[in-house]
Amino acid sequence: MAQFTVHARSGDYPVVVEAGGLSRLGRFVRSLGPRGRAVVVSDANVAALHGPLALRSLRSAGFSVRLVTVPPGERSKSRRQLSALWDHFAASGLERGDAVVALGGGVVGDLAGLAAATYLRGVPLVMVPTSLVAQVDSSIGGKVGINLAAGKNLVGAFAPPRGVLTDPRLLATLPARQLRSGLAEVVKTGMAVDARLFEFVERAALRLRDGDRASLARAVWLAARAKGWVVSHDEHEGGLRSALNFGHTLGHALEAASGYRGLLHGEAVVVGMRAGARLSVAEVGLPERDRARLEAVLDRLELPQRMPPTPLARLLRGMASDKKRRGGVVLWVLTPRVGSASLPRPVDGRRLRAVLLELGARVVR
Amino acid sequence: MAQFTVHARSGDYPVVVEAGGLSRLGRFVRSLGPRGRAVVVSDANVAALHGPLALRSLRSAGFSVRLVTVPPGERSKSRRQLSALWDHFAASGLERGDAVVALGGGVVGDLAGLAAATYLRGVPLVMVPTSLVAQVDSSIGGKVGINLAAGKNLVGAFAPPRGVLTDPRLLATLPARQLRSGLAEVVKTGMAVDARLFEFVERAALRLRDGDRASLARAVWLAARAKGWVVSHDEHEGGLRSALNFGHTLGHALEAASGYRGLLHGEAVVVGMRAGARLSVAEVGLPERDRARLEAVLDRLELPQRMPPTPLARLLRGMASDKKRRGGVVLWVLTPRVGSASLPRPVDGRRLRAVLLELGARVVR
Repeated sequence: MAQFTVHARSGDYPVVVEAGGLSRLGRFVRSLGPRGRAVVVSDANVAALHGPLALRSLRSAGFSVRLVTVPPGERSKSRRQLSALWDHFAASGLERGDAVVALGGGVVGDLAGLAAATYLRGVPLVMVPTSLVAQVDSSIGGKVGINLAAGKNLVGAFAPPRGVLTDPRLLATLPARQLRSGLAEVVKTGMAVDARLFEFVERAALRLRDGDRASLARAVWLAARAKGWVVSHDEHEGGLRSALNFGHTLGHALEAASGYRGLLHGEAVVVGMRAGARLSVAEVGLPERDRARLEAVLDRLELPQRMPPTPLARLLRGMASDKKRRGGVVLWVLTPRVGSASLPRPVDGRRLRAVLLELGARVVR
Repeated sequence: MAQFTVHARSGDYPVVVEAGGLSRLGRFVRSLGPRGRAVVVSDANVAALHGPLALRSLRSAGFSVRLVTVPPGERSKSRRQLSALWDHFAASGLERGDAVVALGGGVVGDLAGLAAATYLRGVPLVMVPTSLVAQVDSSIGGKVGINLAAGKNLVGAFAPPRGVLTDPRLLATLPARQLRSGLAEVVKTGMAVDARLFEFVERAALRLRDGDRASLARAVWLAARAKGWVVSHDEHEGGLRSALNFGHTLGHALEAASGYRGLLHGEAVVVGMRAGARLSVAEVGLPERDRARLEAVLDRLELPQRMPPTPLARLLRGMASDKKRRGGVVLWVLTPRVGSASLPRPVDGRRLRAVLLELGARVVR
């Protein structure tokens, strides 16, 4: 078992990374304070795989347990599912001393996290991330939210969990495409904030792609710790934390343009990172060699080299509703070198269009 | 102009109390940071009375302004209205550097406050309370929320405003019943935390009941400052702040039992305070003389002496879903003396039933 602590304004919380850790979920939740009831929120796929062990562990630790599932996929990050969770919590008689356990990937964590943060003005939340994206990124840092038709994560909160229990063994059940998509976020964290993590992924790329258990466990540990370090220093995204948005301005717009169906989140971020790196060469002096290293590692992980055909105008409109926009100007996080990010900044419009066209955007007349 | 500062974890904020202050709303919002857009959330009644001046002031200060109104009344504290506000914010292109202005009573403040707290994970909120309850209580302290069928304020957040602008002159347009209902919260704050405020209300009761402008301005200042002092010391209701729930355990259950229609919030709290005081005599040694003082001042303010006929069982059920419940036990804030409150505690069930029957609850067979 390995563990680190994340600092948050509302209280520090532990992130435990432990192969096989799911079986001691109940004791972990108890150690964080909650007693009584635990509502486990999951999706139908994850619940079938890992629900029984999670529930058994919670019951052994004395919790009265209720399982609530939502349909798998990004489209569950909706007001309808949020509202349904509130009703489930009310029907369960959930109290402030009880717990909500988010057992699933980023969608479940974001949705259950927002529901827990807003029910009774905040019920303790324990994250049990089961996807790679969630283990290395979304479970840590307290960003929770749902999507509106107008854009991704437009409704949400900064609401740190009471604790995070990460079991890298759960990754063994992930479909290969999901796994590779998650590796995109590992690459992102390496490229934007941690050169040593980036170098590890470069060395281990083929083993990671093939799901080698030890390499994955190592990547999870390094990437989760790097994310924890960043959000401990900048919980509310005043500066440093925005580095983690590398690739996300375009990534979110691409996901929205596809109705959250065509590309997985990490795949959309890959296209965003390729765009970001190409812009970085011209705008912030990223050495061409480092751009090539980034794209090469993405290639070795068999991640997308371009976007599906997407109307350019729709992408530009999508980026214009990004949360990070100020005064109507879209801001990009760029990378002047491997392991380092610029503060969000506007980019040259002509250059941006050229890069988007290179990556597969279409001009529709 | 008088002003005090409230301490909150996410940053201190000013509460300005100024007769005629509404005309300088625009400059006030600018002084707090926001630039660009301001979405003013109000209800149809308040918007008709005070909307034009508020909008003019914001425009003069350079804001691009949009007004959104919701139907007056507690029933607007709903997920439907919350969701509609999110859509309005998205349609306005609201950004994190813009502002939401809540112009109205407690309902508008609670609803707009939750919408602002959850849009883009938090857009600056400026409270402009127009009812007495809002001026002395709900605009200060950062509690925002909506109701579910299962209970009042079950969904919400602790989300302090960026600032509060209180103009006691706005009270001149309040219906007399609304005003008296607001005075109930002033009495509550006096009884539970500030004996000098209580004594002021005792002395000025008839002038306050009749809407005397100077007495009201004084009461607003004293009660708002007392509330600010309490929440500065206990933002998240770990102890001290729960004193302000005096009268509210039963009050919320009564409001829910009437479908949020029969009684105004303050009137329901009055019945709750009468019950709380009667229980306090037996349970925490409130001198009988002090119980009589409390009930006498409520009588002089022409506030309800009993509840409308309400099934006892429904009240007990309603209290059982109170947020302050722990392990299924309903907790009451009691008052051992004027100006002082006990921590939330269980009360004797038989005594509670007797008091509820005295106050008008009915046993239905």
